[in-house]
Amino acid sequence: MPELRKDPVLNRWVIISTERVNRPTDFKPEYDHYAGFDPSTDPFAGGNEHLTPPEIFALRPPDSPPNSPNWSVRVIPNKYPALRIEGDLDPRGYGLYDRMNGVGAHEVIISSPDPYLQFRDLQLAHMIDVFSVFRLRMEDLSRDKRFAYVMVFKNHGQSAGASLRHSHSQIIATPIVPKRVMEELSGAHAHWRLKRRSIFQDILDQELMMQERIVYENDTMVALCPFAPSFPFEIHIYPRRLCSDFRRIQPEELRGLSEAVKTCLHKWYRSLGETPYNFLIHTAPNDTEISAIDEEYPYLDAYFCWHIEMFPRLIRTAGFEWGTGYYINPIPPEEAAGHLRGIEVQIT
Amino acid sequence: MPELRKDPVLNRWVIISTERVNRPTDFKPEYDHYAGFDPSTDPFAGGNEHLTPPEIFALRPPDSPPNSPNWSVRVIPNKYPALRIEGDLDPRGYGLYDRMNGVGAHEVIISSPDPYLQFRDLQLAHMIDVFSVFRLRMEDLSRDKRFAYVMVFKNHGQSAGASLRHSHSQIIATPIVPKRVMEELSGAHAHWRLKRRSIFQDILDQELMMQERIVYENDTMVALCPFAPSFPFEIHIYPRRLCSDFRRIQPEELRGLSEAVKTCLHKWYRSLGETPYNFLIHTAPNDTEISAIDEEYPYLDAYFCWHIEMFPRLIRTAGFEWGTGYYINPIPPEEAAGHLRGIEVQIT
Repeated sequence: MPELRKDPVLNRWVIISTERVNRPTDFKPEYDHYAGFDPSTDPFAGGNEHLTPPEIFALRPPDSPPNSPNWSVRVIPNKYPALRIEGDLDPRGYGLYDRMNGVGAHEVIISSPDPYLQFRDLQLAHMIDVFSVFRLRMEDLSRDKRFAYVMVFKNHGQSAGASLRHSHSQIIATPIVPKRVMEELSGAHAHWRLKRRSIFQDILDQELMMQERIVYENDTMVALCPFAPSFPFEIHIYPRRLCSDFRRIQPEELRGLSEAVKTCLHKWYRSLGETPYNFLIHTAPNDTEISAIDEEYPYLDAYFCWHIEMFPRLIRTAGFEWGTGYYINPIPPEEAAGHLRGIEVQIT
Repeated sequence: MPELRKDPVLNRWVIISTERVNRPTDFKPEYDHYAGFDPSTDPFAGGNEHLTPPEIFALRPPDSPPNSPNWSVRVIPNKYPALRIEGDLDPRGYGLYDRMNGVGAHEVIISSPDPYLQFRDLQLAHMIDVFSVFRLRMEDLSRDKRFAYVMVFKNHGQSAGASLRHSHSQIIATPIVPKRVMEELSGAHAHWRLKRRSIFQDILDQELMMQERIVYENDTMVALCPFAPSFPFEIHIYPRRLCSDFRRIQPEELRGLSEAVKTCLHKWYRSLGETPYNFLIHTAPNDTEISAIDEEYPYLDAYFCWHIEMFPRLIRTAGFEWGTGYYINPIPPEEAAGHLRGIEVQIT
């Protein structure tokens, strides 16, 4: 059973997930997972459904049985889950320390049955389907009262942490609201307390006025390089209609979001070539009461907004970043945005 | 001039350091800096002193002029500094945002003149000299009133961020106390407020009583795998005599620390082979007034303690870690410590 442990100084939780590696000596640093990639043994490929655990959900024709071919997007449990779905948290002390059972959900969303189809090359309608499945799984998992938060993320490429080549995303439901999300809620709430405005509205207003860091916009979404990005070419995507919860995204917004993500991925590709990247969706905690920061606490929509953060993995983090929590970024976001803005991309 | 920018939601500073890369198109992901390593053009090698900026400090015989050969440890300015030594902070707003000049110091400490000598293979007396130089440079840089913090760190191996093969460490002085350090101070202070004890004393007491996570101890130092480590085989080294400030380390502690670091590096090497790693020293802010968290604030030694954090880079961080701020560690620290404890190492 995986275990959640709290660092007693930093109050940061760590998942001790022993099912992902067997023994200390099993470690192979920089192991090449992609060498000798063979689609016939690719567990995510259409026709190989028997190589995965039974599916949780799939977009497939109404008459097609679960775990058969003919799906377009498929959700399965992660075979090496960081957290386990069964059981109770059972929080306990251990002398000075705090621990609890590693209860949570860890699912894989397979983008398509095609082993070689990159996420950015999904047809627009197909990408909309993938984002709809993200929303659906978030909604379903957030009904489990043991889970405080649901996060969707994608690792593309080995050095971005993707151990399988076939395009997929992951969804993880955690019993604790993540530290990064708490920091965003807390920062946004501090701004609201001072200004009685959403920091996200203020950011969008200034960015749309100045235009220097905008990468792409459409009717529903704005993609920009943030003022203080941790990584070169980092992009954040915000909805124009501020809303704290991705589960409440509207159909026209799902379309606009898919267009924005696809466009940004192609702009990266045209600019940087085949580059590993991560993206993730930050949204409200499942139960908004959990995020209460003090008594002066308005409805979450007043100060928080869901968004996507995406960053290519061009630079390595080193001792400085780990020791300080600060990042060194060699490309000013104005320069990155100007460069990306200038690249014409046609999406279909 | 590099610039410090604050993320308006997370209140996290980022260094926009344009001098490290010229243009967006200069990016080569996963560039192999070590291919074709040639000691005759190694700027850190003895005899190549003319290939670096003039030295700031060196351990060398009294009659040997600066920038000549015959040194054992040499400190030079970083040729591609993340922060610049000249000028004032000049903090300014930019609409909604906050920025200041990227003023700071960024130095390189070359471990030895030998291009091939690994840090772990330095003779013990030589390693003591390196740690003494760390202390000396910290002391000197902390006298500059513009700098709030001085951090020493080492990147070993390309995927740990070392762009040069020749063993070296770095020291960086920043105008702001880093976020990670503020989090440690704040967590340690919360414990003190509750218990009127140092969390570091409590950790050492429990760990020495239980012994299950101890890797190595000597008269002055304790090396252990922390209860909630972010990384497999992560080790923290604490002095037995709690002290907030590395600048006040005593000669017998420098010896004990060097023995502990050398022993742990060799245990890693025997266990994991040649593996990239980082280590860093966390110490008190330069001016302890900066770290005041509230009025109930005792002398820093009462609740904080300098320490070394070191971790091999065996796993890649991915979307989950960036999105949550939490880490997934596949090796329980008890198992890692037991494994490392069992490896006999002779150091000289």
